[in-house]
Amino acid sequence: METTTLTRDDLAALLAKVFTANGCSETVAGILAANVAGAEAAQSYSHGVFRIEGFVSTLRSGWVDGTAVPVVEDVAPGFLRVDARNGFAQPALAGARDAFVARVRRQGVALLALRDSHHFGALWPDVEAFADEGLIALSMVNSMTCSVPAGAVKPVLGTNPIAFAAPIAGKPPLVFDFATTTMAHGDVQIAAREGHSLPEGTGMDSAGQLTGDPKAILDGGALVPFGGHKGSAISLMVELMAAGISGGNFSFEFDWSGHPGAQTPRTGQILLAIDPSHGAGTAFADRGRVLVDQLAEAGFTRYPGARRRAVPVGPGTEVPLEAPVLARLEALASGAA
Amino acid sequence: METTTLTRDDLAALLAKVFTANGCSETVAGILAANVAGAEAAQSYSHGVFRIEGFVSTLRSGWVDGTAVPVVEDVAPGFLRVDARNGFAQPALAGARDAFVARVRRQGVALLALRDSHHFGALWPDVEAFADEGLIALSMVNSMTCSVPAGAVKPVLGTNPIAFAAPIAGKPPLVFDFATTTMAHGDVQIAAREGHSLPEGTGMDSAGQLTGDPKAILDGGALVPFGGHKGSAISLMVELMAAGISGGNFSFEFDWSGHPGAQTPRTGQILLAIDPSHGAGTAFADRGRVLVDQLAEAGFTRYPGARRRAVPVGPGTEVPLEAPVLARLEALASGAA
Repeated sequence: METTTLTRDDLAALLAKVFTANGCSETVAGILAANVAGAEAAQSYSHGVFRIEGFVSTLRSGWVDGTAVPVVEDVAPGFLRVDARNGFAQPALAGARDAFVARVRRQGVALLALRDSHHFGALWPDVEAFADEGLIALSMVNSMTCSVPAGAVKPVLGTNPIAFAAPIAGKPPLVFDFATTTMAHGDVQIAAREGHSLPEGTGMDSAGQLTGDPKAILDGGALVPFGGHKGSAISLMVELMAAGISGGNFSFEFDWSGHPGAQTPRTGQILLAIDPSHGAGTAFADRGRVLVDQLAEAGFTRYPGARRRAVPVGPGTEVPLEAPVLARLEALASGAA
Repeated sequence: METTTLTRDDLAALLAKVFTANGCSETVAGILAANVAGAEAAQSYSHGVFRIEGFVSTLRSGWVDGTAVPVVEDVAPGFLRVDARNGFAQPALAGARDAFVARVRRQGVALLALRDSHHFGALWPDVEAFADEGLIALSMVNSMTCSVPAGAVKPVLGTNPIAFAAPIAGKPPLVFDFATTTMAHGDVQIAAREGHSLPEGTGMDSAGQLTGDPKAILDGGALVPFGGHKGSAISLMVELMAAGISGGNFSFEFDWSGHPGAQTPRTGQILLAIDPSHGAGTAFADRGRVLVDQLAEAGFTRYPGARRRAVPVGPGTEVPLEAPVLARLEALASGAA
């Protein structure tokens, strides 16, 4: 198919117009556009341009407030709360970021708890930037009921992603970001659209039988957590931490039935960060390098985050878009679609 | 087989004598004995009396210092370090506990990083007591090279357990504690001793083939992390956090070859705790109850930690011991074995 190549920043500028044409403030549009364009440029397709239809559909449904101004609450020396006021998570995190980093450096560890927020993008951008500054970061988000924990018969939990980033001397940060279900919901949707089957046991069909058919998982079925009862425990921890600490909704609590087209979970998120310079012994990033080198020596080929940074993404990174996709974005940006 | 029943506290008193007869100070002996007797009474057999031979063998080898006095270092308002000085982890945690809880309550979140420590008991006792006080706790310990991460061909990581505890209104705390390998090393040893086979893919044999034979795993083979590449990422995070932040050894770094009989890893540990009363909305424990009730309604039968607390363990809990086991403990306690 014919493709057109945009730079990352030209794509971001186009996406910002899509967001403002569909009810976002300039501030919110800029932050979301940078996030989505960055994911697309990093070849994280499940959280790139693929997500735009979901963002637009949700904004048009009135489910999320694209103009929300987050409120940062200082509740303890190491604890900040943010009320996202029914807006997107990324602008709420951006609004609290400087104060949060100052707390982490001063206290050694700090916690940011975000409530009434919608997280619909990749999670790794929320943590990777901290590692670029020498900090360790861990984030958890709960989402929407679509996962049956081991031992249960009905879905309760969301895909409940977890992301972690740490600085490594002379290397890109070590970063991982994954759904605590067997697969991200976006990847199941892509497989269904493209007609691929998934590994057996990726989810359950509507009769409660394990299956690898993406359509069966999406059509009245559900995902399951990765890793059996241990992965289920991790996914449950994410649910409890992200919503319970922040005061956000659990994955099963919000009701979007009055907003047809809504796709973003209205829940909570936590972000924990540690300043390892308060630790002991050799600098943390140097110690991390010792571990990473040992892993390489043992044949470890999945250095987390390295694939994305092998060709560093910058303002001018070229992003190919298929012609109908670009035309659709331009129509959405002009308000004609 | 003939069994004799002791109360939990009588067992602890006997075990304390075992520890003092083998080189521990009274303080260290009391803490370790309470930990092991508590695990046995809670039917956590892999970390109960089964572990005593390993403790004794290690103490007699001169590998660990049973009289070590931990040094607590105050490095930031939310960050305490403890140098265990080549002693056991539990006495080091006990020495820092009051200061740590005060930090958690004041700062909202605090981090305890323990180095040059030996963790050879169950991990859940290190977190559960915090949840009994209304706090949330998360701990990670790295151990000794025995696990091949997904994508590697040789072992690098340890069993690297993670433990989590949170208060739930009207219920025992929600607690989980598991090795981030498919199985705890102690459970593999028990299976080998009893001649049980394990699920296929529990580990690798010495030729690098996945196997369920516990003897093949222990005899030149290795474990693998649970849950494929996602579980491998979690296990890697534990390695990096527990040793990298604390200044302790990685699982592959310590050399006990000069101490035949040594079995305890000389590594590091972190403990993160959060005071959720600084959070938003309804009290955290009440929100946790909402989640737990929803899980129960969905048929969730593995409420983490509930089995152990279904019959609460107290000073008088009856603990059956087979006659040869009791005789062995008495011989070890008297210095005759």
